[in-house]
Amino acid sequence: MDEVRNRTAVLGTGEVPWDSPVVPADDPGLRGDGFFETLLVHGGIPPRVVRLEQHLDRFERSAAAFDLAVDRSAWENLVTSITDDVPTGTEAALRLTASAGTCTATLRPLPESVRRGRDGVHVITLARGTSTTPDAPWLLNAAKTSSYAVNSAALREARRRGTDDALFLDAAGEVLEAPTANLLWRAGGRWWTPPQADRDVLPGTTLAAVTAALGVRETPCRPDDLLAADGAWLLSSLRGAAPVRSLDGTPLPVDGSLTTVLRRTALEP
Amino acid sequence: MDEVRNRTAVLGTGEVPWDSPVVPADDPGLRGDGFFETLLVHGGIPPRVVRLEQHLDRFERSAAAFDLAVDRSAWENLVTSITDDVPTGTEAALRLTASAGTCTATLRPLPESVRRGRDGVHVITLARGTSTTPDAPWLLNAAKTSSYAVNSAALREARRRGTDDALFLDAAGEVLEAPTANLLWRAGGRWWTPPQADRDVLPGTTLAAVTAALGVRETPCRPDDLLAADGAWLLSSLRGAAPVRSLDGTPLPVDGSLTTVLRRTALEP
Repeated sequence: MDEVRNRTAVLGTGEVPWDSPVVPADDPGLRGDGFFETLLVHGGIPPRVVRLEQHLDRFERSAAAFDLAVDRSAWENLVTSITDDVPTGTEAALRLTASAGTCTATLRPLPESVRRGRDGVHVITLARGTSTTPDAPWLLNAAKTSSYAVNSAALREARRRGTDDALFLDAAGEVLEAPTANLLWRAGGRWWTPPQADRDVLPGTTLAAVTAALGVRETPCRPDDLLAADGAWLLSSLRGAAPVRSLDGTPLPVDGSLTTVLRRTALEP
Repeated sequence: MDEVRNRTAVLGTGEVPWDSPVVPADDPGLRGDGFFETLLVHGGIPPRVVRLEQHLDRFERSAAAFDLAVDRSAWENLVTSITDDVPTGTEAALRLTASAGTCTATLRPLPESVRRGRDGVHVITLARGTSTTPDAPWLLNAAKTSSYAVNSAALREARRRGTDDALFLDAAGEVLEAPTANLLWRAGGRWWTPPQADRDVLPGTTLAAVTAALGVRETPCRPDDLLAADGAWLLSSLRGAAPVRSLDGTPLPVDGSLTTVLRRTALEP
């Protein structure tokens, strides 16, 4: 089977060699002053980019937090051109990145860690030292910013401890989100996720799709609530719904049929 | 008088044209996953880079938070080469930026806003929604990371409100730091700064120099404490000691002789 090619394209320029330099040293994007989206692509004729419109909706909202605008049709054209040869039966990871200086799209094969994560993840809790905040637009809470250092550091910490992923806790000990995913759990015959308003929780496109299809309610969550649940999942664009196999070393139940239902909703366009 | 040239250099490559692309689209630095230093350069023969060794010390500590190392002598050589023609009597802003992918140095004339800030700044308080955190290395508290989106957004908010700068408050209403500076104030015949341990306050090189020269003690600070102080300053590498002229619209006393003492310590090598 053909493989996914690494590709890079620059808005306004077009495709360039994958690893060529495209961003100048003084670009604000190198100060985390930008925003991005990560999308799943199913290969085929034509390829299918999962929930492109919803991702571009959030991309526009993120841009507004930086006093910037998104040329939506230009991005759509860039996405079409860079995904045009994803082979049937393969999956690819598409990343859109923008700053006031440079806008790029990159395409890569789906990382092996993503594939493994779909079968289940071992998770630790990590304090984030945040508390509920009032309306404070300068905190960029609903923007998917490029300032991802803490998210990456949390994933490194999880791997250092022999696990796959993390759940951030706020100052009150309540669960917020994973570094690159929202939390979903099943209890009392319903689907649940932590509250998002006025908290540093990114509104996920996958969570929104699951909410639209299955109905998800918000309620505060502590780690003990997850240990008593019928199952918990991390929702994100590439992994879809990753079942949580353990939390801080304690096993959680994994329900294959619930996971199948979630995965179908999460990974389909 | 000659002017400072815009210059860019890449570690391992050397100087390149100022605005040429140097960073590939998938560089972790474009996800805020990197660290940086900003330094003041006094032109001359030879030019003087203020507290280069102290900045490189922090650069190394930041690198460690990313599981990376700093080739100190390579950076020193890069700094020497890129600052070699800063004209006598001028000042320049030097920025060192590193990620797991790309390491760059940029040199620019001192921005006019920096020069204006040395004469005084009008400041607002902004909530940051953080609370005291225990030892949590994944929060990267002491690292000067490239994830600066909130810092930049806070400065945009300050300008939107007709002011120059901001002071972040934690969840308890205590002052933490400015987006790109530490806070210093004078009260009871002593110099004070907010506590740094276990809080998201960056240990500044300018504050460290002022502490070594004049003695600065830590104590918790609320906005009202500043209104009752003999003066307050924002300490940072380029502005040195910027006197706070007002806080949330209330004037603060500005003492020219104290500012002169601080400036001499802050801006000298």
